[in-house]
Amino acid sequence: MTDRPALLIMQRHLAPLTAFLESVWDVYRFWEGPPLEAAHDIRALVVAGEFPLDKALIESLPNLQLIACFTSGYDRIDVDWCRARGLPVTHAPGVNHEDVADHALGLILAARRQIAAGDRTLRSGGWTPDSKMITPSLNGQRLGIVGLGSIGEAVARRGEALRMTVKWWGPRDKPAAWPRAGSLLDLARDSDILVVACKADDSNIGLISREVIEALGPSGLLVNVARGQLIDETALIAALKDGRLGQAALDVFEDEPTDAARWADVPNTVLTPHTGGATTEAVQGMLGLLVQNLQAAFAGEPLKTPVPHS
Amino acid sequence: MTDRPALLIMQRHLAPLTAFLESVWDVYRFWEGPPLEAAHDIRALVVAGEFPLDKALIESLPNLQLIACFTSGYDRIDVDWCRARGLPVTHAPGVNHEDVADHALGLILAARRQIAAGDRTLRSGGWTPDSKMITPSLNGQRLGIVGLGSIGEAVARRGEALRMTVKWWGPRDKPAAWPRAGSLLDLARDSDILVVACKADDSNIGLISREVIEALGPSGLLVNVARGQLIDETALIAALKDGRLGQAALDVFEDEPTDAARWADVPNTVLTPHTGGATTEAVQGMLGLLVQNLQAAFAGEPLKTPVPHS
Repeated sequence: MTDRPALLIMQRHLAPLTAFLESVWDVYRFWEGPPLEAAHDIRALVVAGEFPLDKALIESLPNLQLIACFTSGYDRIDVDWCRARGLPVTHAPGVNHEDVADHALGLILAARRQIAAGDRTLRSGGWTPDSKMITPSLNGQRLGIVGLGSIGEAVARRGEALRMTVKWWGPRDKPAAWPRAGSLLDLARDSDILVVACKADDSNIGLISREVIEALGPSGLLVNVARGQLIDETALIAALKDGRLGQAALDVFEDEPTDAARWADVPNTVLTPHTGGATTEAVQGMLGLLVQNLQAAFAGEPLKTPVPHS
Repeated sequence: MTDRPALLIMQRHLAPLTAFLESVWDVYRFWEGPPLEAAHDIRALVVAGEFPLDKALIESLPNLQLIACFTSGYDRIDVDWCRARGLPVTHAPGVNHEDVADHALGLILAARRQIAAGDRTLRSGGWTPDSKMITPSLNGQRLGIVGLGSIGEAVARRGEALRMTVKWWGPRDKPAAWPRAGSLLDLARDSDILVVACKADDSNIGLISREVIEALGPSGLLVNVARGQLIDETALIAALKDGRLGQAALDVFEDEPTDAARWADVPNTVLTPHTGGATTEAVQGMLGLLVQNLQAAFAGEPLKTPVPHS
């Protein structure tokens, strides 16, 4: 074990962090091969919260002090298991919820106002003198928000600015500027557009079930900017194919990256590669919190943004 | 001349109006051949304002009473020429400006947050484990609005809801909630995103010149939801190709439908087929005004929404 702490970055898409982190610490990258020779030096794992932990790996690192989650979400991290081993988990809350809400709004507009489809039609020569694409106005559309956390509230404010009426549902009631539906099924039934914006955990896998999807119905639009596992993706695809659901606009998927072939013959979709929270600005904010948490852990000081106890 | 007035619809994309109008009047469709046998029956032309009038045709219709413009814009209609011949022109104001503003916001989000490009990347298999698309946040971006009419104001309100700062420019100053730039060039220079939302007429063809485009610059986004003729499209394409302009998101074009081949090798664009104001709801509102204007004209009553004197 050297004096200079080492970090192990777990997921390839976090590779761009390397250059910055290397200026302060030694950095290993898991996908380049398990760093057996450095097992004693590695003091923190840098992870994205939408991927499960490699528990066997963690148990092979005797001097590990921290699971540093780069993202805000930490849904696939077994926080209790870490705590039982004396391993705190940190994350990056409150940094990108407004950007995620912007993306949700962009998905709503791209789907409802046919911006993605219109772009495809024009580029393929499908705009002709006798064609005219008519799209539904957002005015008065009923926007249902699943989970009124910081993202959900930011989506609600944007929805109102675009003349939509807002309702929400979450498992716990709370003071809010918008009415809470009696149940998720009620919310889906009373919505034209349903935006999934809640935190994902083991308790709500498949929350947006076939029943909820059918309650939203043939003219409904389902938007997901939270986590793929919240939606029964197989039921979603089936409902889109036979018209039981109108449209879906998804930034997150059951498996990421999702397989393009899975969506090839699914109509009425807008699909983005989990870019909702990944703005230049948000990434800088998340990197700032990551560095502060790593420094605090190595200095034996209180962590800046530990994952809260549930 | 029969007792039942006849209408002549001029543009093919207005064809869907036929069924409704036929329930009250006789309807001819210009693209099916000039209705020589009905020249004496035709009492109104139904037109879209982005197309020039066929003046020779108008002079061949002895009992014409009205140029009924289905759209809000009437930029290609020679209103003075019509008036000199005793022909009033009506249009459909105040019906779709909020929908056009929604579309402008959708174009901004589709371009800046790479929603259209992300959708293409994902579908073509370009989302891989080591790829991560990072996009700029809208937070604090400087939104410049060219023309603070009803569309411009609606875009400004939306921009503020998405944390952008707003300035505008128009040839005439007016009381407004946002500061007016000293000139169009100043506005372009001080903006990250420039939205063209002004009325088009003979005086402002090519308003968004090469100079304005270059002032917006390599990281700037130009959005047009007004009329294609307002932008020097050849200069725009050249600037996009060599990076003097960052991005363009266009709903309107110099020629419509625009030729897909014209855009095939132009990077960083989002292109929609003039759908900004064409919502189901707005089309119903425009149809309502069209019918009221036609009825008033044939009854000799005051027109509901005549084009104002300039």
